Amino acid sequence: MANSERIKKDIEALRNITQPCEEGTTRLSYTPSYRQAVDYLKEEMKRYNIVPREDNIGMLYGSVPGSDPKAPHILSGSHLDTVRCSGAFDGQAGIICALEAARMLVENKVALRSTYEVVATIMEDGARFPSLGGSRLASGLLDDSYLDEAKDDDGISLRQAMRDYGLPGTLEGVSRKGESAKAFLELHMEQGLKLEQSRTDIGIVETIFGNRWFTITAHGLASHPSTPMDVRSDTALASFQLVTQLAKLAAGEYAGKATVTCGRMNLHPAVINAVPSRAAFSLDFRSGKSEYIEELTRIMKKMIVDISKEYRVTFDVELVVDHTPTPTNTSIQKVLEHAVSKLGYSSMRLDSGAGHDAQAFSSLWDMGMIFVPSRRGLTHCPEEFTEYENLAKGADVLYEAILTIDRGE
Amino acid sequence: MANSERIKKDIEALRNITQPCEEGTTRLSYTPSYRQAVDYLKEEMKRYNIVPREDNIGMLYGSVPGSDPKAPHILSGSHLDTVRCSGAFDGQAGIICALEAARMLVENKVALRSTYEVVATIMEDGARFPSLGGSRLASGLLDDSYLDEAKDDDGISLRQAMRDYGLPGTLEGVSRKGESAKAFLELHMEQGLKLEQSRTDIGIVETIFGNRWFTITAHGLASHPSTPMDVRSDTALASFQLVTQLAKLAAGEYAGKATVTCGRMNLHPAVINAVPSRAAFSLDFRSGKSEYIEELTRIMKKMIVDISKEYRVTFDVELVVDHTPTPTNTSIQKVLEHAVSKLGYSSMRLDSGAGHDAQAFSSLWDMGMIFVPSRRGLTHCPEEFTEYENLAKGADVLYEAILTIDRGE
Repeated sequence: MANSERIKKDIEALRNITQPCEEGTTRLSYTPSYRQAVDYLKEEMKRYNIVPREDNIGMLYGSVPGSDPKAPHILSGSHLDTVRCSGAFDGQAGIICALEAARMLVENKVALRSTYEVVATIMEDGARFPSLGGSRLASGLLDDSYLDEAKDDDGISLRQAMRDYGLPGTLEGVSRKGESAKAFLELHMEQGLKLEQSRTDIGIVETIFGNRWFTITAHGLASHPSTPMDVRSDTALASFQLVTQLAKLAAGEYAGKATVTCGRMNLHPAVINAVPSRAAFSLDFRSGKSEYIEELTRIMKKMIVDISKEYRVTFDVELVVDHTPTPTNTSIQKVLEHAVSKLGYSSMRLDSGAGHDAQAFSSLWDMGMIFVPSRRGLTHCPEEFTEYENLAKGADVLYEAILTIDRGE
Repeated sequence: MANSERIKKDIEALRNITQPCEEGTTRLSYTPSYRQAVDYLKEEMKRYNIVPREDNIGMLYGSVPGSDPKAPHILSGSHLDTVRCSGAFDGQAGIICALEAARMLVENKVALRSTYEVVATIMEDGARFPSLGGSRLASGLLDDSYLDEAKDDDGISLRQAMRDYGLPGTLEGVSRKGESAKAFLELHMEQGLKLEQSRTDIGIVETIFGNRWFTITAHGLASHPSTPMDVRSDTALASFQLVTQLAKLAAGEYAGKATVTCGRMNLHPAVINAVPSRAAFSLDFRSGKSEYIEELTRIMKKMIVDISKEYRVTFDVELVVDHTPTPTNTSIQKVLEHAVSKLGYSSMRLDSGAGHDAQAFSSLWDMGMIFVPSRRGLTHCPEEFTEYENLAKGADVLYEAILTIDRGE
């Protein structure tokens, strides 16, 4: 069975591998703390004769070689990058549980036919470069031009960030397209309350929600706060109005169907006594169904026409991320459910509100996902937490599923 | 008559005395560019035998000595500091027109009984330290402890900023309390559209509006954007809702009575894919009547109770500035109106939506204000502008009023 103490030790080590930040763990892609976390995992792999390999975009693979070098591989993992001021579970728990399954294979001297690979992906969380960057490159969904197109907030291109990190700045050997594999499995925190509230050990994911990100800039005119409300071109009020109306829709007509989030709002010139001439903000639309995301997008565009007139401003809308909802494979769902049941754990079917690397890998291979409970539903914050015993249960399920998939059952 | 070319030369010189900024003129109090602007004015004063004096808080006075050293002085001026990315008219035009009146007195060899002082105040615009700081200190409305209480965004105290600027860090000789004066006159841009739209040269201010500033912080919980709307503690949505509701009230029930402005909004952690755990923002309430400011404050507190519940957040509210509405003296209004009429210019009565140093000086002396037109009503932005011919008309009115007040008519 999986060793919860060993899992805890890894998670606590990763928690402390962080860039300077007000609180929690911050490990953006291609930073020194990212390098440090990769090195930690490599050392841990070597200790168990798991063979580490870093590719040209900084993804880390750790292989437990199978008896048949020609057999399609089985892979499991998640992402090593975090958002700012986050925790050590989101993404990272999926790597550590996949690693724990590998350690169990080695310790139990299991002779798999297929090579099993632990995967630590990069650029999943979109805090520096657009989300699912590593898995989309590894799946061959993006080509070399993307390395110049993708830029961080400081205008540094992905290619430059890769070079600064010590990589050659090319995609040679990165894409796994054309390689067959039996499955890609991902364990992740639920990022919701269903498992915790129903005291369920494991969630079997049916659909990974799609998400669409916009960055929007409202342009108006700076003026003095004594300017009457009906003549000013107030970009703050116009932007707040747009976000508020969309959020009311998400909380009302679209409740349970879609969410709307504004995570960034920058006003210019950002002084107390000037009506802002510019407001730059982000919107995240999320849903299990493409049609809801499409509807919200259409509604937003209509709202922008009305609000532009009402507030005498203009809006520039840029689509920055667009991931469509992705179902997991029913065959893998069954394997995972069978593993849970064999181990005597509890499980339920649910959807993933968040996007995951498994979405990108599903373009190549059969894909499945399991969730473990998130305490109070919290992620992307220092408080995110899953009981270590429950992470061990997740590792057990991965281990059992790997054995079943290897046998081709 | 006033020399519009000379006025233009001064304004254009001040426009170029700016800190590095994305656009326009930025001259925060106690910065090297502030020093440079004071030095420019001192040189200009010396050229006309106007005697410059800098006090311990960096206010600049320039005297045209009267024949009777015991006679109460007559003062006129405005502020030399700007908000960020602003222009060279707001505040500065009032100094240059007061200086132009002094140059006219000197050139015309007018023997006033009273000494006439040109005044350049500091800390009026609140971009670094709370607004009306210089005039409130010069009026004796604030004591020495204020130098430690007032802090800029970097946590630097006013005393420290004064010392870093080369001043001793004390209030010795700063307060004018106890000195009698015949009048304090201030010329300022209208910061509105009334003069421009009615093609009127000069506005005679009846009441200077009061303004109340709050800095508000909403505290919630960071979470993933897939968190359902009805369980998240979304500080962005809660804050936008509060501002939007108050702005709708200002645009509706309080139209023409009060304005509400949000100039700052900072979300934390400020990433696209996290519900913000914290939102810090500013509110500016402005009105000619204290009762409207009081009513809006009461309504805001009620809204906060409701919104806190609806969005599962808490709000910390800090009152940072509270200036009550201030009427100008009717006797000075009449003197100014008489001057306008004698010069053959047009004038109208109006109120000042913005706060001004004249408010603070009104605690000591009779006070009057005139407005000149603002093109398109714009101020606090690079586009702010008044025709130089119209500034010359304003200087003529100041000059005539000074003569009348000196004669004691």
